[in-house]
Amino acid sequence: MNRKELISQIKQKESFLCVGLDSDIKKIPCHLLDLEDPVFEFNKEIIDATKDLCVAYKPNIAFYESMGSQGWDTLQKTIDYIPENIFTIADAKRGDIGNTSKMYGHAFFQQCDFDAVTVAPYMGKDSVSPFFEFDNKWVILLALTSNNGSVDFQSVEDRNGNALYKNVLKTSKQWGSIHNMMYVVGATKAEQLLEIRNIVPQHFLLIPGIGAQGGDFEDVVKYGINSDCGLLINSSRGIIYAGSGHDFAKKARDEALKLQQRMAVILSKLKI
Amino acid sequence: MNRKELISQIKQKESFLCVGLDSDIKKIPCHLLDLEDPVFEFNKEIIDATKDLCVAYKPNIAFYESMGSQGWDTLQKTIDYIPENIFTIADAKRGDIGNTSKMYGHAFFQQCDFDAVTVAPYMGKDSVSPFFEFDNKWVILLALTSNNGSVDFQSVEDRNGNALYKNVLKTSKQWGSIHNMMYVVGATKAEQLLEIRNIVPQHFLLIPGIGAQGGDFEDVVKYGINSDCGLLINSSRGIIYAGSGHDFAKKARDEALKLQQRMAVILSKLKI
Repeated sequence: MNRKELISQIKQKESFLCVGLDSDIKKIPCHLLDLEDPVFEFNKEIIDATKDLCVAYKPNIAFYESMGSQGWDTLQKTIDYIPENIFTIADAKRGDIGNTSKMYGHAFFQQCDFDAVTVAPYMGKDSVSPFFEFDNKWVILLALTSNNGSVDFQSVEDRNGNALYKNVLKTSKQWGSIHNMMYVVGATKAEQLLEIRNIVPQHFLLIPGIGAQGGDFEDVVKYGINSDCGLLINSSRGIIYAGSGHDFAKKARDEALKLQQRMAVILSKLKI
Repeated sequence: MNRKELISQIKQKESFLCVGLDSDIKKIPCHLLDLEDPVFEFNKEIIDATKDLCVAYKPNIAFYESMGSQGWDTLQKTIDYIPENIFTIADAKRGDIGNTSKMYGHAFFQQCDFDAVTVAPYMGKDSVSPFFEFDNKWVILLALTSNNGSVDFQSVEDRNGNALYKNVLKTSKQWGSIHNMMYVVGATKAEQLLEIRNIVPQHFLLIPGIGAQGGDFEDVVKYGINSDCGLLINSSRGIIYAGSGHDFAKKARDEALKLQQRMAVILSKLKI
């Protein structure tokens, strides 16, 4: 999916919601466990219940890999089930030397037909660039993450007083473009969004910290939104585990709807 | 495998060689392609031909993931085939928020029975610590990588003149111990090994840059070795793709043997 199509979906659905499919066999409703592929059945019901309210799904690859080859089958079936007009993100946080990153690109963009993959910047340009060789696919680079450990290295300032995450933004924005690159920005640092927007005014930002990880929705939107919206706000556990009974999908829909309605108001106010 | 057992294997085999299983279906000998699982058959022959010469195998996970669920089956079969007394490293370069890193730990330490996994430090302590919850398992943290892109962020100095990779070493060595943590140090930066050894004198270092990625074997050993050896030197393509015909395994053995013999001389000289 290209940028124009993504923006068009946001306007059409009045939503910039991304639903995180951190689907854990230990947390899904018990009544699904007797089925042949419980995690896929769970994802299928979540997708059916939320697909008109969100513009993106983000499976967390660790949860599928923890089930071995069966997990990859589940992941593949899930991606095949998501409607074509919804943006798909492999939350994989990969990044390796060139020939290896290219193999990861092959895994997520060809073997599975994801639109985007999250990538860690530590190894630099030649670990990220191979992902750009795939047409119409996106890198979502980690800039500032929402976990406590983000202060360990991401906030360390260089000789000029620039924190590492700002250097990552400044340097990496030259590697790709607003048409094939987004950034992960932790929502718990909403006050930093203003500075981030000074560096990357046009890029889409994936905000993972809404819901179980905390984060202030209003601040994120206030400082993060741009004229194309430019935001994908993710909620994983807050939506998919809203219920634990037979009505789990309805409860997930209720939570997604609450977020979508707040987003619709904002988009309407800003005439996006 | 614990540290004592690893050191014992190094002494017994007079080797600190790690063979990288970057096994690519497009590069393995054609005569294997008619078999049911060509990559596993390739790995099997490579393992049979080198298992007395190396102390570790390091499958590069990207190469398996690029084949989807079949690739995970191949990976699982490969790990099951490697003898118990050889250290196994999932070269995966993972790292995510706590609950997700734990899932990756489950994938590589329980679903597949690897001894170690490579981890990227960008997200900080709480992205690395969950891997320590698995008994007798190791984190191999990226410090200084061997690719050109390592200069983009790893070499950027903070206000005190410390490059990021040195901060990673200094900070992270407090998270684990020499019994559950190693570091990836790119062999093309042999002159920096001296400085690295000042920070982490006792940790094992995984040196990935020998062979196709360049690197000076003598310098790496001179500046990197410690009284327990403390080195795992990896060669991937230089060994596994040494031949492309029916004798590929013999040719792989020849290359592994050359490295092992150089290692034996060094270990003997240093009375390790």
